[in-house]
Amino acid sequence: MIETLQSYQNRNNAQLQSWLNNLPHQHQALTQAMRYGLLLGGKRARPFLVYATGEMLGCDIADLDAPAAAIECVHAYSLIHDDLPAMDDDELRRGQATCHKQFDEATAILAGDALQTLAFTILAEGRLAPNAESLRIDMVKNLASASGASGMCIGQALDIEAEGKMVGIDQLAEIHRNKTGALIKCAVQLGALAAGKKGREVLPSLERFANAIGLAFQVQDDILDITSDTETLGKPQGSDQQLNKSTYPALLGLEGARQKAQALFEEALCALDAIPYNTQLLEDFARYVIERKN
Amino acid sequence: MIETLQSYQNRNNAQLQSWLNNLPHQHQALTQAMRYGLLLGGKRARPFLVYATGEMLGCDIADLDAPAAAIECVHAYSLIHDDLPAMDDDELRRGQATCHKQFDEATAILAGDALQTLAFTILAEGRLAPNAESLRIDMVKNLASASGASGMCIGQALDIEAEGKMVGIDQLAEIHRNKTGALIKCAVQLGALAAGKKGREVLPSLERFANAIGLAFQVQDDILDITSDTETLGKPQGSDQQLNKSTYPALLGLEGARQKAQALFEEALCALDAIPYNTQLLEDFARYVIERKN
Repeated sequence: MIETLQSYQNRNNAQLQSWLNNLPHQHQALTQAMRYGLLLGGKRARPFLVYATGEMLGCDIADLDAPAAAIECVHAYSLIHDDLPAMDDDELRRGQATCHKQFDEATAILAGDALQTLAFTILAEGRLAPNAESLRIDMVKNLASASGASGMCIGQALDIEAEGKMVGIDQLAEIHRNKTGALIKCAVQLGALAAGKKGREVLPSLERFANAIGLAFQVQDDILDITSDTETLGKPQGSDQQLNKSTYPALLGLEGARQKAQALFEEALCALDAIPYNTQLLEDFARYVIERKN
Repeated sequence: MIETLQSYQNRNNAQLQSWLNNLPHQHQALTQAMRYGLLLGGKRARPFLVYATGEMLGCDIADLDAPAAAIECVHAYSLIHDDLPAMDDDELRRGQATCHKQFDEATAILAGDALQTLAFTILAEGRLAPNAESLRIDMVKNLASASGASGMCIGQALDIEAEGKMVGIDQLAEIHRNKTGALIKCAVQLGALAAGKKGREVLPSLERFANAIGLAFQVQDDILDITSDTETLGKPQGSDQQLNKSTYPALLGLEGARQKAQALFEEALCALDAIPYNTQLLEDFARYVIERKN
């Protein structure tokens, strides 16, 4: 799995680089900040899910490059904006200075804005299967729905609103279902869309899988924020506690949070059981989500 | 012209309200901040240009609602972000508290982000002429190209970079061609795209018209920043000088700037001369641009 993850990462990076190279004003701080935020590290979990889902369903990998690149642009923009002083006020991301520390706040805000725009440029202009006009529109709809006020943005807003308050387990799940989960679900949806009819048939199972690993991803994040160290994480350990964020370990205890992650992993495998294709990569990814150290 | 402007404004407002009403979490600060930034005043110049261009070319007005609403979402998001403390640090917009003063910075950043996303949702989901899948994609391409790192965002970045420096007249034009001009040109392009073949035939003349009035709009903005007052403007008078921004009056003198606006107006009329349809509304709009008081 790690080899495939690496190979998808490399492919995705090359694609992102190529889109960035097409921009005018290469020497301007805005373009450099976009490059910095987009290419400096990152697990590329969402592109992985686009590629793994699409290839499992028989897509040509070149027809998956555009949705994989587009979703990573949205993810990168959200990290740049989430790190801003007015939001989570983080100085370290992926072991490096956050975008607004490396450049300045104005440039970081604009770089995030322009990376979101780039995502839609990529879906509108990138290679997709031939005569795929309606597919393109479905992908735009899907990515916009997962990113905006009905997905990732409302998740971040709910998360900020909950700071310093003790929220219940259902409310915490609602925050993460939007903040992290919506884009992870979108990744498998884009992979499935690219596969046409085959994709539509297995979409409910794929979404069930994505909902489980999306939440598991967050539970594991919460666990690592307590049990790991800043160097391994690439971001400050203990930052959730500092912001008084509600977390799974805070609500369930550390052992309870680990059990929750394990239960979500099993739920994900159960969803994969209903898919009549080779789901090995997706299964490996689910295991990676709950076993990862950073 | 003012009656038509008012009627297009009302139509555009109703459309925007309807898209906002479709969002979940209506009572959340994020959704309220989106509504605040989008609906509180504004001239609706870009929607006007979409409607006026499209109707001149024979489009059904209902097929112009989506591009008009989408472009106003991008404009509104850019105002919210431009007003942030890290950018122009403005407290007043359209006679009201700016979004981050009314809510808070985090909410304003997210509201801008989600309004950008909403623009693409509207293009992907809104009513367009039947079987208009490739038209939809062209509109997404066009709006993204005008908004991002090759248009509006790079314009704002160049503008910030130029603060406190004396820039030349060509560099100032380059800033405004991107910062304001790109989206104004996009408005006539979207109107022309909606009209199909007829639109393609007159596109070069429409773009020449839009380039002229886009720059004239900015020259007049610079003039009003000196000659008007805060109450009429709805934003603090003299804010360009406070930020040490290069302006047309600073480079050409007040009288020189007025002559520049007049020359651009004549250039706009000249471009309209080549269009074999009823260009009266567009001509009136060009006059409004250089005669407006706020």
